[in-house]
Amino acid sequence: MRVSNPGVPRVGSLPAGPLDSIADVAGVTVGHCTLAEAGVQTGVTVIRPHGGDPYRDKVPAAATVLNGFGKSVGLVQVDELGVLETPVALTNTFAVGAVAQAQIRAAVAANPEIGRALPTVNPLVFECNDGYLNDIQRMAVAGSHYDAALADAGAGFAQGAVGAGRGMSAFGVKGGIGSASRVAGGHRVGALVLANFGTPESLTVSGRPVGPELARRLALPAGAPESEKGSIIMVVATDAPLDARQLRRLSLRAGAGLARTGSVFGHGSGDIALAFSTAYTVPDDAARPMPAVALLHETLLDPLFRAAADSVEQAILHALWHAVPVQGRDGHGRAALPDVMPELRQSC
Amino acid sequence: MRVSNPGVPRVGSLPAGPLDSIADVAGVTVGHCTLAEAGVQTGVTVIRPHGGDPYRDKVPAAATVLNGFGKSVGLVQVDELGVLETPVALTNTFAVGAVAQAQIRAAVAANPEIGRALPTVNPLVFECNDGYLNDIQRMAVAGSHYDAALADAGAGFAQGAVGAGRGMSAFGVKGGIGSASRVAGGHRVGALVLANFGTPESLTVSGRPVGPELARRLALPAGAPESEKGSIIMVVATDAPLDARQLRRLSLRAGAGLARTGSVFGHGSGDIALAFSTAYTVPDDAARPMPAVALLHETLLDPLFRAAADSVEQAILHALWHAVPVQGRDGHGRAALPDVMPELRQSC
Amino acid sequence: MRVSNPGVPRVGSLPAGPLDSIADVAGVTVGHCTLAEAGVQTGVTVIRPHGGDPYRDKVPAAATVLNGFGKSVGLVQVDELGVLETPVALTNTFAVGAVAQAQIRAAVAANPEIGRALPTVNPLVFECNDGYLNDIQRMAVAGSHYDAALADAGAGFAQGAVGAGRGMSAFGVKGGIGSASRVAGGHRVGALVLANFGTPESLTVSGRPVGPELARRLALPAGAPESEKGSIIMVVATDAPLDARQLRRLSLRAGAGLARTGSVFGHGSGDIALAFSTAYTVPDDAARPMPAVALLHETLLDPLFRAAADSVEQAILHALWHAVPVQGRDGHGRAALPDVMPELRQSC
Amino acid sequence: MRVSNPGVPRVGSLPAGPLDSIADVAGVTVGHCTLAEAGVQTGVTVIRPHGGDPYRDKVPAAATVLNGFGKSVGLVQVDELGVLETPVALTNTFAVGAVAQAQIRAAVAANPEIGRALPTVNPLVFECNDGYLNDIQRMAVAGSHYDAALADAGAGFAQGAVGAGRGMSAFGVKGGIGSASRVAGGHRVGALVLANFGTPESLTVSGRPVGPELARRLALPAGAPESEKGSIIMVVATDAPLDARQLRRLSLRAGAGLARTGSVFGHGSGDIALAFSTAYTVPDDAARPMPAVALLHETLLDPLFRAAADSVEQAILHALWHAVPVQGRDGHGRAALPDVMPELRQSC
Repeated sequence: MRVSNPGVPRVGSLPAGPLDSIADVAGVTVGHCTLAEAGVQTGVTVIRPHGGDPYRDKVPAAATVLNGFGKSVGLVQVDELGVLETPVALTNTFAVGAVAQAQIRAAVAANPEIGRALPTVNPLVFECNDGYLNDIQRMAVAGSHYDAALADAGAGFAQGAVGAGRGMSAFGVKGGIGSASRVAGGHRVGALVLANFGTPESLTVSGRPVGPELARRLALPAGAPESEKGSIIMVVATDAPLDARQLRRLSLRAGAGLARTGSVFGHGSGDIALAFSTAYTVPDDAARPMPAVALLHETLLDPLFRAAADSVEQAILHALWHAVPVQGRDGHGRAALPDVMPELRQSC
Repeated sequence: MRVSNPGVPRVGSLPAGPLDSIADVAGVTVGHCTLAEAGVQTGVTVIRPHGGDPYRDKVPAAATVLNGFGKSVGLVQVDELGVLETPVALTNTFAVGAVAQAQIRAAVAANPEIGRALPTVNPLVFECNDGYLNDIQRMAVAGSHYDAALADAGAGFAQGAVGAGRGMSAFGVKGGIGSASRVAGGHRVGALVLANFGTPESLTVSGRPVGPELARRLALPAGAPESEKGSIIMVVATDAPLDARQLRRLSLRAGAGLARTGSVFGHGSGDIALAFSTAYTVPDDAARPMPAVALLHETLLDPLFRAAADSVEQAILHALWHAVPVQGRDGHGRAALPDVMPELRQSC
Repeated sequence: MRVSNPGVPRVGSLPAGPLDSIADVAGVTVGHCTLAEAGVQTGVTVIRPHGGDPYRDKVPAAATVLNGFGKSVGLVQVDELGVLETPVALTNTFAVGAVAQAQIRAAVAANPEIGRALPTVNPLVFECNDGYLNDIQRMAVAGSHYDAALADAGAGFAQGAVGAGRGMSAFGVKGGIGSASRVAGGHRVGALVLANFGTPESLTVSGRPVGPELARRLALPAGAPESEKGSIIMVVATDAPLDARQLRRLSLRAGAGLARTGSVFGHGSGDIALAFSTAYTVPDDAARPMPAVALLHETLLDPLFRAAADSVEQAILHALWHAVPVQGRDGHGRAALPDVMPELRQSC
Repeated sequence: MRVSNPGVPRVGSLPAGPLDSIADVAGVTVGHCTLAEAGVQTGVTVIRPHGGDPYRDKVPAAATVLNGFGKSVGLVQVDELGVLETPVALTNTFAVGAVAQAQIRAAVAANPEIGRALPTVNPLVFECNDGYLNDIQRMAVAGSHYDAALADAGAGFAQGAVGAGRGMSAFGVKGGIGSASRVAGGHRVGALVLANFGTPESLTVSGRPVGPELARRLALPAGAPESEKGSIIMVVATDAPLDARQLRRLSLRAGAGLARTGSVFGHGSGDIALAFSTAYTVPDDAARPMPAVALLHETLLDPLFRAAADSVEQAILHALWHAVPVQGRDGHGRAALPDVMPELRQSC
């Protein structure tokens, strides 16, 4: 029985870590700032890769863009340099600019020579469109909400309709933040997703095509399933010593977990995966010694690949199961999947 | 009842074309040359995109490399120019060079100025490693086998342990050639796969994780599943008017179908998808008029994306179901999945 | 004699258009908003690809990241969908968020259903770091400055230390905005650059390595050249009917022009090129007809490739020649190259 | 005075290594097999990255495809795994298959379990089209020629019209093999090129546009320059400890050197750069320890970037200067540049 995620179907055969969340990767913490007031249903979620300053101690990272219908910022430089140098921020699509500015301000506050003697800092902000529940045009997210999410970061964190997940929808029901972990190959792999994707008809839970029944209960009009809008951001962390090239490989496997839930990476869905390693850091200051890292041998990656896929699929289920019903703008509302289909709950 | 593929579980809700094969995309034909004699169990499969000369009338095409542990040739130029100019050839990994040479010879025979007044021709050969059943070091495939496969091309073609699929394995049983099609969005999408991937433990059929039971019946030693070796080549054809950028998007969705069968795109598996369109061609000769094509609007791609994913998943099942048991080199043999797990056969 | 750019060395043998600027590509206009007050030396430059609403009538586009040390936003979606749907904005690196928000607001103002019935809009903002002259930490650029630059757009526009170029440096002297055009293959190709790159030692003008002499006159300390910081954004427009794949090819050739000025695409330099075509547009509304475009035959691209490279090299020279000396924060100043090396001026 | 390359203009200000060739990177050797008999003017060149077996001790590597009009094999796997596992082979475009087969045979001979207990091996063969001088349709290159080139490998090697360079043309004169090196940032960077690109009009030597005069002397018909056909392969080696991501960055800088010679990466030119490091190797056998490498800090790359660009530009000049006139098929011949333009020779 998984106390922390009661009733959620279990994905795969690999063991989860003690928290079954991305925080099982030692040092990784997560914080939220949730805005929930009438038509404003949105927020910010922050993932800190370690307890220090990621500008000074950069974190090896890489991303895969499965479908680039998205407005994330920061991937150009991650792709070139293979590191992230800020916490990872998630928010709604119209808030990216405000959160990126807040990341810059926070980095400058900690390193006052950024933009002067030091180079600039690369904000890293991912987004989904929560415009169905949230009045996105009000641009309610401010830089202070990023600061609040950052201050909130800890190893124990809420899932579901919180933080950036507050206004997100998935499969026609309430989506949002989910997280999970797996232990494989002597290492831990954790995932955190911002789930805002999928048509009701396509939902697949542990291989079972429950989507058509879900669509019927949601009283969708008959006919072809509506096109896939929304998006999903998938962040994968591991304590295995991988470099950026290997992390890019790992990030791609998030797509396998995503596909198992019924997604075909729809045209309008910004499906992006980021992977980072906590096994070592890269100093900003060239005068400090570079780490001498013995990377994991390539042929030992398969267990981690499976752990990444399973963690992502599990995290999506967690997002659906932890979600509470939310009423948003203009009478729009989303039910929670376990309320709509209570038979999906697993007895413990 | 599917006469052509009796007993095969049906993937998804989209209708198949009349042949439920890539040949449902008008003009596409497939031919095989099979080498099956003692330790030599291998061959060549050829997909012709149209009945003419693809050098003179090039075919819009693009590829996605999901996992690049592979030795295919031709993708650099396909990526740059967005067309293919030879038939698509599939064979074993040590035969790529011989088949590429045969493609050059065939193109020169049809266009004697290639390499003189005309530029060179770009061979396009994909491969998997059939070395478990086939004595690959004998390099038994010759250029004449490519010619024979080309001459064999037709709309009706065998699946399973034929052509390039002769010596391939998948999920610990016999793999090989499979094909399927779907009709969606007013267009046809067909797939042909060369399936040579997957551990027994990971096999998932229509969402059901039958792999652990398969592994038990194959009497695999207990413990962690062996690493994923082998590869899969997935060729997707459509009659929708798409350009190379859109075809690249389409090709990526093959990965969703692949993931549903249990794959996480294992380290040692060259998982590559190619997509091409038959809606128009591009002339080699700049003096001929360029086609004035009204492409499909981007927002209409979703049904095709689902069709590509479903066709690939279905084609993999077809490969497994059509396979016959094969004995190869050094006493190595592979059983057919429906013989090992007869309960997987669907009654009609 | 080039009246509009007197004294500037002439690059290559292709003829320039009548304006020798990106505005020679019919419909393209450029506007600036310049902030120049004590330590604030920065601004915004906007390129409008046509006179209409680019959200409704999207513009085929593609980019090449030569060196991804940069914080531009919007490239993920341009790469996936092959279009731009806002004007192209240039600004300083800390202003990207503010300008992106302003682009969203402008798009919503013109299309009130964006983020509701319509999908979101993809801001497209490029940046360089003007922190040597400009007190970048003050984040002086606001959304209103984007609006002002947009309102200023016209075919006649200033170059040098204006708009986003106000605070930029290149080769140790004043850089900024430059533009040029060439006519080739029956089409026009124009470039606009935001030049903020290059060490003094490396400057090459029309093939002449004038950098060492420039460094001496700037009284740089002896020894190895300092590392290349800063960046360059290169925007290439053409009226040739090209698709996104071909435009990506065209954008890469900006790198050839850049290299001829002495750049080796330094580690710390975000060197990014975007290319777009004005030959046709793609409707946002799928109910409107898609354009039936006969693209340029691939073998006819070479003149355009040369035109792109020459336009970019010429535009860099224009940026240097049009620059006026600027005094910025903390006593930092940059001289104009023609003042430092008057012998580089061509007599007419 | 450069004894080994008398009369060749000197590129840039960085010092060359003692040999001014790729063999200045310790351990790198080069061998040729030249076929020169009437209409057959072609060959094979091999670069060995170290003296051992690259299958067992793989070499970190990465590539940049500047223009993908090319038929090279092996880049898919290099891109995925970041290593090369065979020597680097260069030959003519129709010989790629034969040489790839020879690489497989050589790897199997040294490791008899390849394709059995061991995975397959990834051939790595680059090509240019020497069809103007060489009767390429005769497919004269056999596997034995690869073996001979491999056996010939040494630190002292010929340049010009030898090996794969035998039949190549550049700028309307004789091209072929060239090599050069630079010392920068405490490390050595060497380049070897197979130069088969460029129109006469475009030739630029040390920044001087000598192309128009060259075209006149070659008595080319007046009018626009012919389109750029042919290709260039650029192999960059370094002893700096770089990983595959950094090597990809290094390989891109080859393009800067290429651009300075007048190239705009023409449509029909397969312009590909490969970079590898000799600082460490990666074991094939996962049971052997992985190297614990302290990589070069990213901000220290600039001198290496310049060294790569300068080495490539210098190597192209060496190819032109070392070339001897060659008569090939059907009365076709190419003169040597220093014979056509003797004034380009530098006095020592």
